[in-house]
Amino acid sequence: MIGDEAKSRRLMSLLKKRGFLQPAFEIYGGVAGLYDYGPLGGRLRRKVMQKWLNHWISLGNIVEIDSPTITPEEVLKASGHIGAFNDYASECNSCNSIFRSDHLLEGFHTNPDSLDGSSLDSEIELHKIPCPSCSKVDWLPAKPLNLMFSTTIGSSKIGRKAYMRPETAQGMFLQFPSIYRHFRSKLPFGAVQMGKGYRNEISPRQGMIRLREFNMAELEYFIDPLMKIEHKLNEWDSIKLKLIPDPVGNDPEEILLSVSDAVKKGIIRHQTVGWFMIKTYELMSELGINSELMRFRQHEGDEMAHYATDCWDLEIFGGYGWIECVGIAYRGCYDLEAHQKSSKSNELRAWRDFEEHITVEKRVCSPIQSKIGPVFKDKSKFITDYLESLEEIPQKFPIVIANQGEEHIIESDMVEIKNTKIIQRGEWFIPHVIEPAFGIDRIIWHILEHSHKEISKKDDENYTVLSLNSDVVPIDFSVYPLFEKDGMGLASKKIVENIRSIKGINANYDGSKSIGRRYARGDEVGVPFAITVDHQSLEDNTITLRERDSQNQKRMSIEDLLKFVSEYK
Amino acid sequence: MIGDEAKSRRLMSLLKKRGFLQPAFEIYGGVAGLYDYGPLGGRLRRKVMQKWLNHWISLGNIVEIDSPTITPEEVLKASGHIGAFNDYASECNSCNSIFRSDHLLEGFHTNPDSLDGSSLDSEIELHKIPCPSCSKVDWLPAKPLNLMFSTTIGSSKIGRKAYMRPETAQGMFLQFPSIYRHFRSKLPFGAVQMGKGYRNEISPRQGMIRLREFNMAELEYFIDPLMKIEHKLNEWDSIKLKLIPDPVGNDPEEILLSVSDAVKKGIIRHQTVGWFMIKTYELMSELGINSELMRFRQHEGDEMAHYATDCWDLEIFGGYGWIECVGIAYRGCYDLEAHQKSSKSNELRAWRDFEEHITVEKRVCSPIQSKIGPVFKDKSKFITDYLESLEEIPQKFPIVIANQGEEHIIESDMVEIKNTKIIQRGEWFIPHVIEPAFGIDRIIWHILEHSHKEISKKDDENYTVLSLNSDVVPIDFSVYPLFEKDGMGLASKKIVENIRSIKGINANYDGSKSIGRRYARGDEVGVPFAITVDHQSLEDNTITLRERDSQNQKRMSIEDLLKFVSEYK
Repeated sequence: MIGDEAKSRRLMSLLKKRGFLQPAFEIYGGVAGLYDYGPLGGRLRRKVMQKWLNHWISLGNIVEIDSPTITPEEVLKASGHIGAFNDYASECNSCNSIFRSDHLLEGFHTNPDSLDGSSLDSEIELHKIPCPSCSKVDWLPAKPLNLMFSTTIGSSKIGRKAYMRPETAQGMFLQFPSIYRHFRSKLPFGAVQMGKGYRNEISPRQGMIRLREFNMAELEYFIDPLMKIEHKLNEWDSIKLKLIPDPVGNDPEEILLSVSDAVKKGIIRHQTVGWFMIKTYELMSELGINSELMRFRQHEGDEMAHYATDCWDLEIFGGYGWIECVGIAYRGCYDLEAHQKSSKSNELRAWRDFEEHITVEKRVCSPIQSKIGPVFKDKSKFITDYLESLEEIPQKFPIVIANQGEEHIIESDMVEIKNTKIIQRGEWFIPHVIEPAFGIDRIIWHILEHSHKEISKKDDENYTVLSLNSDVVPIDFSVYPLFEKDGMGLASKKIVENIRSIKGINANYDGSKSIGRRYARGDEVGVPFAITVDHQSLEDNTITLRERDSQNQKRMSIEDLLKFVSEYK
Repeated sequence: MIGDEAKSRRLMSLLKKRGFLQPAFEIYGGVAGLYDYGPLGGRLRRKVMQKWLNHWISLGNIVEIDSPTITPEEVLKASGHIGAFNDYASECNSCNSIFRSDHLLEGFHTNPDSLDGSSLDSEIELHKIPCPSCSKVDWLPAKPLNLMFSTTIGSSKIGRKAYMRPETAQGMFLQFPSIYRHFRSKLPFGAVQMGKGYRNEISPRQGMIRLREFNMAELEYFIDPLMKIEHKLNEWDSIKLKLIPDPVGNDPEEILLSVSDAVKKGIIRHQTVGWFMIKTYELMSELGINSELMRFRQHEGDEMAHYATDCWDLEIFGGYGWIECVGIAYRGCYDLEAHQKSSKSNELRAWRDFEEHITVEKRVCSPIQSKIGPVFKDKSKFITDYLESLEEIPQKFPIVIANQGEEHIIESDMVEIKNTKIIQRGEWFIPHVIEPAFGIDRIIWHILEHSHKEISKKDDENYTVLSLNSDVVPIDFSVYPLFEKDGMGLASKKIVENIRSIKGINANYDGSKSIGRRYARGDEVGVPFAITVDHQSLEDNTITLRERDSQNQKRMSIEDLLKFVSEYK
């Protein structure tokens, strides 16, 4: 049964043994919250990421970008991560161990991560929580600890303060000008980025769920909030999503609704959010997540991130309970506006044509060419453009214009302040953003949990099958010679080679121990098809094809096999 | 002409304008040595990395793994990066600016990066090098600066010192046990890893060549140094590589040799190194690197990294001269041995069967079961195995065996020291490693440089074509309606949709400005084929297909076009 902790532990041990996952730096004692993907896990990860990418790129107006993980402090100040990206930590006054304050209260409070510093302190005092290290009850006040890994760009003496990015999103906001240009200024469009994200957890637990370095995949979808959007949500009316709308208690009743109904009823507050929810559900199902074990939970007002106006978590059920694996947030114009303000750039905006032109009276600062020209010479055009585009009339003169390290002084006699009629064809505005953000490692963990079947057989207590989808499986075909001698080994290797020559298909050879043992080894890592080469194969070029899930076997010619292989995806 | 600096600058400006590459965090003033891949560059990068991966994975005995970028200090102490991964920096005593010492000597010394600290100081003094910031000549002694980004895992007070990895290699060495198990203990085999690497340069210059955070791709190929290997190097005899063998001066004469000849003559010191050289050459050619502009330069003795016994750089020529883009190094057993020693693990080794069993007399420490059993109970088996596997007899007793946090004391009366005859079927040894390491960003830069053609046309001084290979091109087909009206726009969009539905093929729509302008825009970003939809298209379902490099145009039915698209790769 999924959700059984002992079963999850058996899965983890299988995954370690067979080269899917393991704690990183294990021969050096390991580091909590850092994991390795091994020979099979590495391929599974690659395929999950490739499928994720194709799913979004195929929409046609989404591009992939890549930005650095090292991020200067200014960027994260503007985004709100410095200041807000904290967990409370309590330090033991006796032994100086440090723990997440909310973790200390587990079992004593229903929702400890919603408490602020002083509430955490009083709850810890009330319940006389002992230090997990030294058992004393002597806590210093809870302090917010920033969860970013910090570093310095350049030499430590004169370098620039920076952090490892807590999310990939900021890189996409900063690239908005380039993406806007790529799409020839036509919203809506999106960008995706896949890569590492970092969160310096105080005391990470829960295996692949809470990592200090994780694989992320995020999509930023930029829209004009005034533009009418039609997503044809009715196409998915046959699918009822499990929704837990805001505000509901801790043990909520789910409601079942199609996405179009949920948007109509105003439960999902924006159509595009609904569209990403159903597209996400679709992707998760294709990756092998059990649709019965997915639900969308709406954030409550006070839990919502500092920028979001509607936010839904896709939660997946497994050995750690219901875990947030995807967040779909309507972020409004928060991010672009914050960077525009902080950086003083005017590039993080888009242009909207009015349906009809508007004539307005406006007070302008009109440059007097006969004064500007002689003073500024080849800079005159820049100065003129600058003055004409001023949104507000300067309170007093002279004013100073900075450009490429130079300062230009504009005296009051160089301009004429006057009223003029202006035809406005449109206006600048800051696009809104809808962001689906995926925790790839958490998704991979649940793909593995949902495909992990333990079957009781009479001769083998725990026969294990990973029923992975063919889209993500690390090995597609295993080829087993009945014996390695008499040419069966060679014939098998030839088949492996032929299969591997088909693009995107992986095959391996396994010649040791009994056929039964080899089937078991293949099933255990999710190989969908086993091919057995026996004496008859050498005579008539046929093999036996065994299907993992049904265990059905079928004799066929090698020619038909290769046809099957090339068509199976 | 390639190698022309002004042309490289024009290329960079094109790449920024069209969304391939740009300095990162530009609206915040930028950070030297950090770059973004934009909408087109992101796709180019993805395709280069995918092709790299397929090239090696298709060999059959290579797997992809993934390990964290955050690396605890112990690992990098063992690997030799703490201590050796340094550049010398000189600080100006007057203004406190810091520069790479060898950069200060450029133009004054032919090979300044080969100098040690005191030689750098005396050369700087000899030539009275002024500070580039304040022009004073007042330098503090050159100091080695470690080039790793440092950080702390956990809270800064009690956390663990760590660095951002300077290479992906260490993660693969630490995963050796898992990879060895995956390949059922049969060498040779390899692992690859692609991801970010970090190098905290003092003052990075040279655009994409010298980055602080870069895309790496490395392969670690593990071999038994005693095993006979046959790589069939003669298959590549028609290809003559440009080689610069060690030791040759700074303006070397290249020799042209096939890889098999170079191995036979002992110039390439290991056959597998030669094999990786030719396989790398093959890959680079397929990616679009001009084969005339590649050469392999062997490291001189004193330039070789601390572990390598033969090392060749693939250098590619471009606007920055000859630049090292790949290093292929025979690292011996250095890395695995270093980690085995530091971590006290015994898992970083492989087993080799002897051809014939050997009987040897050996002094052993034989456990006396009647003494061990009563004392250690359920731990007896562990103790027995441990004592029997001791390579050396302890000098004196009692000895202490640590196991899972417990300590077991073995008294002298629990064992019998005796001579015994042992049949040795084989032995443990530390595998050797051959490592091809690729700088993906440098390769991408040279792919762009080598495909960058400027053609003089009478009406347009600089008509630009990026003749990218179809394997790496961001957009495969552009579809242009002659006019957007009369249904030509719609018909074009339908063709875009049909093309995009073919897996792995990208198409875009461009309807603005003249057809000539649109051809130029497509050529400029390397779109191999342009499709034009005109009035006739609406009548007879034909289009015009224009090929980028030949500029040939051909009228064909949409049906034939889609057939062409699905077969073009």
